[in-house]
Order: sequence, then C-alpha cells, then structure tokens
Amino acid sequence: MQTDVPGILAELRRRGDRLAVAESLTGGLISAVIVAVPGASQSYLGAEVVYQPELKHEFLGVSAELIKQKGVINAEVAAQMAIGVREKFAKACDIHHERVIGLATTGVAGPDTQDGQPVGLVFVAIAGFIGDIDDVRVYELYLEGDRNDIRGAAAAGALQHLAEYLAV
Amino acid sequence: MQTDVPGILAELRRRGDRLAVAESLTGGLISAVIVAVPGASQSYLGAEVVYQPELKHEFLGVSAELIKQKGVINAEVAAQMAIGVREKFAKACDIHHERVIGLATTGVAGPDTQDGQPVGLVFVAIAGFIGDIDDVRVYELYLEGDRNDIRGAAAAGALQHLAEYLAV
Repeated sequence: MQTDVPGILAELRRRGDRLAVAESLTGGLISAVIVAVPGASQSYLGAEVVYQPELKHEFLGVSAELIKQKGVINAEVAAQMAIGVREKFAKACDIHHERVIGLATTGVAGPDTQDGQPVGLVFVAIAGFIGDIDDVRVYELYLEGDRNDIRGAAAAGALQHLAEYLAV
Repeated sequence: MQTDVPGILAELRRRGDRLAVAESLTGGLISAVIVAVPGASQSYLGAEVVYQPELKHEFLGVSAELIKQKGVINAEVAAQMAIGVREKFAKACDIHHERVIGLATTGVAGPDTQDGQPVGLVFVAIAGFIGDIDDVRVYELYLEGDRNDIRGAAAAGALQHLAEYLAV
C-alpha cells in the first residue's frame, strides 16, 4: 500500500483530530494498516467491522429502511456508516464529534455480485467538518482483480482519499 | 500466516456456529485475514477494534474498575472482551449467544511497555460453550520481534488457538 499512513496520522495530530473507521468489504484491513504505525493510538480510536448487513443498522445507525430498499452497496449507506462511526466513537471516548473523522467502506469484493451491484464497485465515505459545517463526502471506486486485489485496492483508495481530504 | 483459516470457517459452518472478534493490539489484522477467505460471511459476523482503553468498557462491557486497577493487559480483560463481543454480536444479529464464539486479543506490541507489562506479552481469549456450559479460555503468549512481528504473531497465535479449540 503506497498511501502515506504516517503522514495521515501526523496531520490528524497536528489538527487535534481523531479517526474512527467502519469497514465492510475491507474487513479490518484499513485498521490493520493504521495500527502498524507506532504511536497510532494518539490519533486512532478504532474500528467497527460490520460484515453483516444488520450490523450496519444495529452498530452504526444506518437506516434499516434504506438497507431493505437499496441494499448495502450504495453511497447513502457509506455516508451513514461514516457519520455513525464518528458519532459512536466520539460519544464513547467523550470527545466532541467535530473532532472525530469517520471513514467508511462498503462494496463488492466478490466472487459473487451483491444486492445487484457488480464485483469491484466500492463506496468510500468520509464524515468530517469544515469549520462548523458538517462535511460528508462519498467516493465511488471501480476496482479490478480478484477478491483480495479488490479489498486491498479499496483499503488503499480509502486511505488515499483520506490523505487528500486532510491535505486541503 | 500458516493457520488454516478456511478450515476454521469450514468447522464453524459444520457446527452452525458464528464468530465475532474483539481486537486491541492486533488492530483488525485477525478480521482482515478471515475475510480474505471467500464465503467468510456465512460464519463471520465482524469485529470491534477497540484501540483505546475506554472503548473496551464502553463497547464490550469490560469492567471499568478492573481497567482502572489492573490496566488492559491482563487475562481478565481478554476474557471479558471475548465474552462481551460474543454477547454484543449475538444480540445485534438475533442469534442465540451459545451459537457465537468470541475471540479477543489484548497485549503490548511496543515499542513502549504498557500498564507495567513488557513488550511482547499478549493475552488471547476464546468465549464459547461446551454443551450447556460456558467455556472461556485465556492463553498467554510471549512474543518477540518488532511491533509488526508481534502483531502478526499475536493474530496467528489467536487463530491457531481458535483452530485447536474447534478441533477438540
């Protein structure tokens, strides 16, 4: 993975912000890459790996109605996961939620399609703030390769988008 | 990692059991290894990566008094993490908790010691059932190497203990 994770953590420290992650198809891979960096605990809170659809609702507050109607592979679910994980970790760690950035992934790693969506379609969401303004962004990725290529590229893509988000 | 993760998942399927993971020092690594196997979602529910001490209490119900008195690097915390993650995922997925196995890790990856415990000391806990009897086991590992060696060996050791637990 080429993304500069130490740089992401340094930028979070500089801002006084913390990071929480919600992972579906990446399944813990983003979190594992982050904690590989010594001192990660200064800025990194942890992750929810929600590998079953109902956990996205139960643990992260994603709308059950939305999941029922559109499945879990879409931009709205990704956005609600990022918002949900930020709120949840901020509350548990007694940090103002504006000081926590939420990063979320949902997508189809394959080998089978899911919820009518093709293998390789991945949504990455970042929930942050610009000043006092709620700022949620969703990125749509189309990835190629086998199951592990797609998971690796989804994790790398998510971290790259976070690095760019923090660089602005 | 040499552990036979497809074999673990096959054995869980055969039993009709599910798996939920609570990771501290391994930080998502165990979860990432599990979801690398196609069809993992049949038996794997997900993970809580609780990289801050207060999350072990808030998300997994580890005793705040225990953490205050003994820190987070000990057998009791590992056991409570495994029990807590099993209960939490069982409830969220509406599965009887006897049909969910909880696997947890806590330990010191380094480079610094933590809570007075040495780098390389890791506790792995498995919360399961034998018949109607609650069965919680804790394994103490002494690992060598740098931060990432220790994290990798802790994840491999946890999965190896789980494989042996399921083989009996």
